Amino acid sequence: MTVSNRLGLKHVLSVSQFDREKLQLICETADRMERIRTSQRKMSILRGYILANVFCEPSTRTDKSFEFAMKRLGGDVGSINDVHVSSFSKGEDLEDGLRSLEACSADIVALRHTEDDAAKRAAAVLSIPVINAGAGREEHPTQALLDVYTLVKERKTTSEVIHERIDGLTVTFVGDLKNGRTVRSKALLLSLFDVKMRFVSPPSIAMPESLRASLRERNVSFTEHESLEEVIRETDVLYVTRTQRERMDKAEYLKVQGSYVVDAQLMELAKPDMVLMHPLPRTGEIAKAVDQDPRAAYFRQIQNGLYVRMALLALLLDASV
Amino acid sequence: MTVSNRLGLKHVLSVSQFDREKLQLICETADRMERIRTSQRKMSILRGYILANVFCEPSTRTDKSFEFAMKRLGGDVGSINDVHVSSFSKGEDLEDGLRSLEACSADIVALRHTEDDAAKRAAAVLSIPVINAGAGREEHPTQALLDVYTLVKERKTTSEVIHERIDGLTVTFVGDLKNGRTVRSKALLLSLFDVKMRFVSPPSIAMPESLRASLRERNVSFTEHESLEEVIRETDVLYVTRTQRERMDKAEYLKVQGSYVVDAQLMELAKPDMVLMHPLPRTGEIAKAVDQDPRAAYFRQIQNGLYVRMALLALLLDASV
Amino acid sequence: MTVSNRLGLKHVLSVSQFDREKLQLICETADRMERIRTSQRKMSILRGYILANVFCEPSTRTDKSFEFAMKRLGGDVGSINDVHVSSFSKGEDLEDGLRSLEACSADIVALRHTEDDAAKRAAAVLSIPVINAGAGREEHPTQALLDVYTLVKERKTTSEVIHERIDGLTVTFVGDLKNGRTVRSKALLLSLFDVKMRFVSPPSIAMPESLRASLRERNVSFTEHESLEEVIRETDVLYVTRTQRERMDKAEYLKVQGSYVVDAQLMELAKPDMVLMHPLPRTGEIAKAVDQDPRAAYFRQIQNGLYVRMALLALLLDASV
Repeated sequence: MTVSNRLGLKHVLSVSQFDREKLQLICETADRMERIRTSQRKMSILRGYILANVFCEPSTRTDKSFEFAMKRLGGDVGSINDVHVSSFSKGEDLEDGLRSLEACSADIVALRHTEDDAAKRAAAVLSIPVINAGAGREEHPTQALLDVYTLVKERKTTSEVIHERIDGLTVTFVGDLKNGRTVRSKALLLSLFDVKMRFVSPPSIAMPESLRASLRERNVSFTEHESLEEVIRETDVLYVTRTQRERMDKAEYLKVQGSYVVDAQLMELAKPDMVLMHPLPRTGEIAKAVDQDPRAAYFRQIQNGLYVRMALLALLLDASV
Repeated sequence: MTVSNRLGLKHVLSVSQFDREKLQLICETADRMERIRTSQRKMSILRGYILANVFCEPSTRTDKSFEFAMKRLGGDVGSINDVHVSSFSKGEDLEDGLRSLEACSADIVALRHTEDDAAKRAAAVLSIPVINAGAGREEHPTQALLDVYTLVKERKTTSEVIHERIDGLTVTFVGDLKNGRTVRSKALLLSLFDVKMRFVSPPSIAMPESLRASLRERNVSFTEHESLEEVIRETDVLYVTRTQRERMDKAEYLKVQGSYVVDAQLMELAKPDMVLMHPLPRTGEIAKAVDQDPRAAYFRQIQNGLYVRMALLALLLDASV
Repeated sequence: MTVSNRLGLKHVLSVSQFDREKLQLICETADRMERIRTSQRKMSILRGYILANVFCEPSTRTDKSFEFAMKRLGGDVGSINDVHVSSFSKGEDLEDGLRSLEACSADIVALRHTEDDAAKRAAAVLSIPVINAGAGREEHPTQALLDVYTLVKERKTTSEVIHERIDGLTVTFVGDLKNGRTVRSKALLLSLFDVKMRFVSPPSIAMPESLRASLRERNVSFTEHESLEEVIRETDVLYVTRTQRERMDKAEYLKVQGSYVVDAQLMELAKPDMVLMHPLPRTGEIAKAVDQDPRAAYFRQIQNGLYVRMALLALLLDASV
């Protein structure tokens, strides 16, 4: 498969497709998107392109982020929210459904799905680009990309080179490390840089062995903890995850829920320039009072998600930005 | 909060925000929208603006009215129909969900919700304008505004000043006066004018004491009745409401349903220039045969709703019309 | 009713409205749509027009085909997926719901519904054009039109006159001939040409007597069979239908399912230029291995569906193409 666009990728399926150079290009393109958007509410660079936004698992935030990104670029969006009602469920398989959308003239697909390999299967049968918008427990590459972009933006240094902004940081992940796919995606993506990682969780939902193995293989320096207080002082980036109620049983959920609540008291222990991130939605893991804290970056993450997705759409469709 | 637009409002949350001058401006702007639309199918004045149309309670009519209004103005629309499937329901609260849409670059929100204070809570956390598209049992301001606009248009007098068209009229409300939020909104808005009000209902779903108190406080001349025949002859505007099946128990519903059916026979008793209004959907309160009667204004209400919502969107976003 | 557009139809409700001339016009217009689309991603000919895409029964494929067709023509789309949540279900009837959409400024309606007469009822109360996007068990005219268009395109002869491409062919329908509305629509439409028809099914889901009667009335030469092998060799066009699981009981379904599977072995018996069609979604009636066969036209059908619907939208709205 020859790919002629500048990103050198036909599809965005996994964080494992990215290296430092690709991240640099995405961050620069996202920056440009933000600058253009300041002067222009809507661009025309994707006029006449249609994004098929296929969400086989509900996620308003990611869904609307892709939709608004496409519309800001001048493109059109066809939404397929195929949870209960669509004819994708008339016994049809995913591949036929997506090939039909391509035949209907869709130019690019964003796919959210409950199964780990959904995006890969989609890419195998389509000749248009596929963006993995979250699949199963494994991958959520656009979330990981927007997290890295946010980190780069929040660390205000003079260097324009992203690895110079990231190298040397201590990144702490806290919460449900077993079920949250964003943790895996983000940890693997950050392993491209020289960062220390701290993983904080109750043992029952600690990181899966497969992630541990992947990190060791990449020579990432990481430690595991049960107490957030143990690591909060050295943490440069605190990545809080949502407890995945839908992926665990109730007893487990109640035990975990409330184990780690980031509140004003905890923030007092943290570095004055720590970056506090959360993929949202939150369900109590971060107290509302913390929203006022300038270190709280979670709504800025969403804003950055728009620019990163605009960048990906433009790059994959090879539009000149 | 400084508001620089001509309407002098940042949000549209409640009918209590309006006075005669604001109503005059809205009616004039809606008139202009209708005139422009005659020559131009689609304007460009809101090009590049995105409306987040958040409907946490289904209402196809109001939903589409906002959507089409935004599209006729050249804007884009992101629909969130958050009844069962959206991630707003992953334990997330309304405020976080809406702040996320704002961070996703939404420029204005129309919010329909089951809770009375939803729109106010939204306005408290957002920096973009919020339009209450119906909340709980209390408020449905855009419906009340389009009702007043319809009344003004249907009363064909030479005066361009709206209070001269409305003052002196007798307005009769009939049906479920307890559960219908449009009655409350409209009665309060009409209390800005010198109108007599008649309220017709079975005692079990008569108007709530709070509305009675509000009308007395504003010195509105009103009476209550059980028989529609008693007041039909003096009525200039007959406002029929839908029996809110979903807000009452079945026995109550069956009793009420069919108590007041507006049919050709009743229309014969009415003034030749009476205005017959209904917010729709109807469930038998107005016989289909009446649709042909030139006094039947309910489908024109919907048309007027488009122009009123176009006017509100343009005014709140301070577009030059 | 005077209709001024070139198609001579106000609405598209039934295949019975079409004759050879109208089919010729539609095929030519669809061809032009494809040619224009090659050079232009998005046209402006329906800019400012709004399609109300009302799907009271789920059908992602048809829904998106209409939506993308409208968007490629520069128009806007308001989607109403009224299965569970819409206020169409607040006891309101279809007619009031559609008249409300018209009053909201919709310019044209595509309607998918569970009831046979839905589209006709819609057309009776609306002054804007209605396109039947599939109703009950009877009619699915746009599917029949795109099937004929596909047949015309797949039979690569020098003649531009469509009946010269179709006359003389043997068309075989196989599968659930009782419940599939596309069979009925397509057979009636093809009866405008000089074709032989073969109907293959188990007796329990053979074609309904009403269709038999209609074909006899039109002097169509047809035969019925239980074995596909019996007719495959003489077949020029094989039209496979989906077993309508939702319209039959489980025992019946299991018996039928798998009776006729088109696989590589069967394709070896078929003519080298046979056209293999299926309206999709398929549920096992055609093996995936057959997708690589150049005779497999089912994804091209979907593509053609886009052009046919673009043609219909443009013709009904009398846009100059």
